[in-house]
Amino acid sequence: MIDVPAREGRGVRVAAGQRFRVIDVEGGQVADTFAFRADDVSEFHSAEHTRVHVNRLFPLPGEQFVTNHRRPILLLEEDRTPGIHDMLCAACDPERYTGLGVEGWHASCRENLERAMAELGHPGIEVPQPINLFMNIPVSGDGELGWEPAPTKPGDFVTLRAEMDCFVVVSACPQDIVPINDKRPGPVALELLDG
Amino acid sequence: MIDVPAREGRGVRVAAGQRFRVIDVEGGQVADTFAFRADDVSEFHSAEHTRVHVNRLFPLPGEQFVTNHRRPILLLEEDRTPGIHDMLCAACDPERYTGLGVEGWHASCRENLERAMAELGHPGIEVPQPINLFMNIPVSGDGELGWEPAPTKPGDFVTLRAEMDCFVVVSACPQDIVPINDKRPGPVALELLDG
Repeated sequence: MIDVPAREGRGVRVAAGQRFRVIDVEGGQVADTFAFRADDVSEFHSAEHTRVHVNRLFPLPGEQFVTNHRRPILLLEEDRTPGIHDMLCAACDPERYTGLGVEGWHASCRENLERAMAELGHPGIEVPQPINLFMNIPVSGDGELGWEPAPTKPGDFVTLRAEMDCFVVVSACPQDIVPINDKRPGPVALELLDG
Repeated sequence: MIDVPAREGRGVRVAAGQRFRVIDVEGGQVADTFAFRADDVSEFHSAEHTRVHVNRLFPLPGEQFVTNHRRPILLLEEDRTPGIHDMLCAACDPERYTGLGVEGWHASCRENLERAMAELGHPGIEVPQPINLFMNIPVSGDGELGWEPAPTKPGDFVTLRAEMDCFVVVSACPQDIVPINDKRPGPVALELLDG
């Protein structure tokens, strides 16, 4: 079990076929999740290619996330949450918090990703549109986006399977200005299954 | 006036403050549009940052597209179309056509973009989620995507204003397998205004 403390990120190399869980430990917490091909980190999970692949805003259980070269990289095997996730919103970043009126440094999913990938030997990666697990961004009929608290309960999780050797990074989103984490960012966890 | 022949792409450098139009010459044709900061092409228009900036799937007239560093790069000044555009779907690419059963080479918006940027002196750019002008991808209440013909009439256009010095590339989408261009890809045009 890899604990991802509140406002931080963690990364791990996962082999093709390996399954893992992303767990919302205390509930109501968004987990920005990223996957990069281990052999070539310029290939990574892509929200815009995945939407075309599944014809949906977000995959259903049994469907795959694909890369910017349209190859399967993750399978959404099981969803033990209310089934609310987002793939529309950029990772929070220093510019986001400046725009929200924060003075000085604020932890962000972009920096968490960059730090985790640097520790895995890959500084300077492109920052993809994240897979925002547990994030509640309702889309109205006229295309307006809402910003609602994550509806997950403590211990809710999704199970994913790596479809290629990849680096997986999970960030416990530090957003505490808009209400997606109910303004109390908490921890998440990454559990590797199958040994 | 820069003619963009059917299935091809064209790029141009645009100065901050300059306005330009993207015109659907014959109607019913998608125009994949991209903008890169002239000083540093690793900064480019970003669909996921723009959605957060405007709280919508696509900006309304008067709203801005922002970059992956959340800086305004284009303003949607005027929309003389039915107001249907997409920012959810990746640019078509060789892998897309292979997946659709095409054998051999097929023109694609990704290759059109890469060629246009190479001609402007920038090979090897990251390929962003495009601004798919005139593209009709309805989103149902449960998040399913439709693929419908573009509803534009001949001569319909949008007017954009550059908010920083940038390279703008427009691709007349060569998609002829799914019905977004009514399976008859046509030309578009890029008209620079203000001199």
